[in-house]
Amino acid sequence: MIRINENYLKLKASYLFSDIAKRVTAYTTANPDKPIIRLGIGDVTEPLAPSVLKAFHAGVDEMAARATFKGYGPEQGYAFLREAIATHDYIARGCPISADEIFVSDGSKCDCGNIQEIFATEGLKLAIPDPVYPVYVDTNVMAGRTGPNLEGRYSGVTYLDSTPLNGYVPAIPTGASDLIYLCFPNNPTGAVATRAQLEAWVAYAKANKAIILFDSAYEAYIRDPQIPHSIYEIPGADEVAIEFRSFSKTAGFTGTRCAYTVVPKKLVAYDLLGNSHPVHALWNRRHTTKFNGVSYPVQKAAAAIYTEEGKAEVKAMTDFYLENAALIRKAVVDLGFTCIGGDNAPYIWVNTGTDSWQFFDKLLNEAQVVCTPGAGFGKCGEGHVRISAFNSRANVETALARIAKALGK
Amino acid sequence: MIRINENYLKLKASYLFSDIAKRVTAYTTANPDKPIIRLGIGDVTEPLAPSVLKAFHAGVDEMAARATFKGYGPEQGYAFLREAIATHDYIARGCPISADEIFVSDGSKCDCGNIQEIFATEGLKLAIPDPVYPVYVDTNVMAGRTGPNLEGRYSGVTYLDSTPLNGYVPAIPTGASDLIYLCFPNNPTGAVATRAQLEAWVAYAKANKAIILFDSAYEAYIRDPQIPHSIYEIPGADEVAIEFRSFSKTAGFTGTRCAYTVVPKKLVAYDLLGNSHPVHALWNRRHTTKFNGVSYPVQKAAAAIYTEEGKAEVKAMTDFYLENAALIRKAVVDLGFTCIGGDNAPYIWVNTGTDSWQFFDKLLNEAQVVCTPGAGFGKCGEGHVRISAFNSRANVETALARIAKALGK
Repeated sequence: MIRINENYLKLKASYLFSDIAKRVTAYTTANPDKPIIRLGIGDVTEPLAPSVLKAFHAGVDEMAARATFKGYGPEQGYAFLREAIATHDYIARGCPISADEIFVSDGSKCDCGNIQEIFATEGLKLAIPDPVYPVYVDTNVMAGRTGPNLEGRYSGVTYLDSTPLNGYVPAIPTGASDLIYLCFPNNPTGAVATRAQLEAWVAYAKANKAIILFDSAYEAYIRDPQIPHSIYEIPGADEVAIEFRSFSKTAGFTGTRCAYTVVPKKLVAYDLLGNSHPVHALWNRRHTTKFNGVSYPVQKAAAAIYTEEGKAEVKAMTDFYLENAALIRKAVVDLGFTCIGGDNAPYIWVNTGTDSWQFFDKLLNEAQVVCTPGAGFGKCGEGHVRISAFNSRANVETALARIAKALGK
Repeated sequence: MIRINENYLKLKASYLFSDIAKRVTAYTTANPDKPIIRLGIGDVTEPLAPSVLKAFHAGVDEMAARATFKGYGPEQGYAFLREAIATHDYIARGCPISADEIFVSDGSKCDCGNIQEIFATEGLKLAIPDPVYPVYVDTNVMAGRTGPNLEGRYSGVTYLDSTPLNGYVPAIPTGASDLIYLCFPNNPTGAVATRAQLEAWVAYAKANKAIILFDSAYEAYIRDPQIPHSIYEIPGADEVAIEFRSFSKTAGFTGTRCAYTVVPKKLVAYDLLGNSHPVHALWNRRHTTKFNGVSYPVQKAAAAIYTEEGKAEVKAMTDFYLENAALIRKAVVDLGFTCIGGDNAPYIWVNTGTDSWQFFDKLLNEAQVVCTPGAGFGKCGEGHVRISAFNSRANVETALARIAKALGK
């Protein structure tokens, strides 16, 4: 008799986005004359950059002739892309990362979700932020590393609370951890970690023989020159950290699909006898066994981001979203709310001081604006909403005018 | 202390393709004046079809304007592609499969590798063919469903021997199985299963409350109208089977990346108490949690295969490879070998009667032709080599002339 992975039965169904959709549909059905503006979803809206489009088309053209046709490529990605990534994203910042430590993939969601497979299941001590991108938690539940969900939290997980009290950057745990998820600039809060804070995490990981899984999908939004873009800007981090990066928010690739994961060759994990094993070899085995590489024209498109032209174009794109973010942040502060994010991230995390679904309903009903209730991201998200800067300038300005009118004192 | 998944230590390193590469490099270094022809690798060589290229470019163009730009799409694939697949690949053949049972992905390797996650680890009885596509085995080793590898086989697996005695279509096991991997037309042998043989497997699965994982990545090469293209052509198979399909060999997508998996809504698996659970919901949860959809322009390109023009173009492509296959098969038979495949598959599986690496060396040294030693695919592959039809006509003809000269009596 074929049996299921019963860990799936522990998963708490996430109704966040379907609940939002239901409430929005109910409102628009009752009020067909009141168009709504969506500042809820974390998805880009602007077209791909011209040099990216040009390279994308050129890559497709290569598939049209036998002499230039590409069949299976290297599972880890083509050298031209891995080398561009290493040079521009790491070596240029003084990070000791080389091209053969880069694994190109079709998305950070996959990589963040799959990475846990190469680590032990039994007895692994997890540390996961709250609020959080749900993939970190759910994939560990599926793998059997947690107990049941009790009142919104899985037993067996150390939750790293991100609250107004710690400026939304969680404190180092007092006990030991083995596998630590961190995300800066943060989704959903938009908070960033300082160099000193990252240094403390790296020191903690070293002391505990732990590994940090560092999600820096939003690093392209950092404008403060003091804030590290990569965990590898911290000396010694290549001995304790894996980093996830994506072109989704950097260059508008959410529908085009390309990302990468950095697994330094210095990184080790241990067997039960305490012998060390290189994590790079484990991940390489996993990656080549279960993945067949990213579409060739997509890799060509991604590489164009690293040309001089491409760099300027994608910088203009993140600048545009950051200008939206600054407008949102100012409007929210002008209304008397405290918030974080929006300066080095495309999200503004608003401390509403009230139930996050109530605040959501108020914005929807009185301003026809959709945000995301913080409670959907974890217990510590309660009392907050996330407002996204991904939209046109006109929509952002209209939304803010309506919010000011609805909430203004 | 961070610990590794120690199941990875059980994995037997596969040196098949690296060993081939080493021997080829050694030969070409010693004989720079003797160009070799590769009929070893299972990768397409011909360009994408014109209508596929046109749709691919059009998809890229949509990413150039805000009004047509696509961000995150549905993880399961766009409706236009899922509906085209259901209509043309299933409903047209009388299979009871609907669009919402289709999950579009970036490759069958990923899907075949990931599917096991939704099933139990402990006590699951696996049945896996030999010779075999290594992903079926390796992903189960990684998940901890096997014991160690002893003399080329993992304990805890029922191997389904495919040999000259059973016409390379394995017999139904005498004992029970829970999860059964089947692949027809087969990689590496090119053997196909008759309707009666598939009916027997479906009946066996029903009797055992087992699930069949049916890999039909090569179905587009079937020309015999009596051979089923899909397991769902067998009545009741939608209660016991998951099917994997790929555009890789159908339409030359090995470097473009698009595939799909069919999980019927009728399919159930059980918990320890014997309660049934729909597998569709489990896979949907896995797919949406760890995957973010296939690149939009790639999905547009894939959908073009189902237009009248596209169908004719990709049929011409598989016809071309099958003409190569027929030439290879005839040449091999003329030399006095018995073989299978090549009529409804792009692979010819030659019974060499000798050690497969010795035969590989003979072809390399005396005919400058690269094949794949059967021993690399499992114990039952010994005494065989795989010759692939994926190459230009000129290369195939030259290779066959050289083989005839080297091996002719």
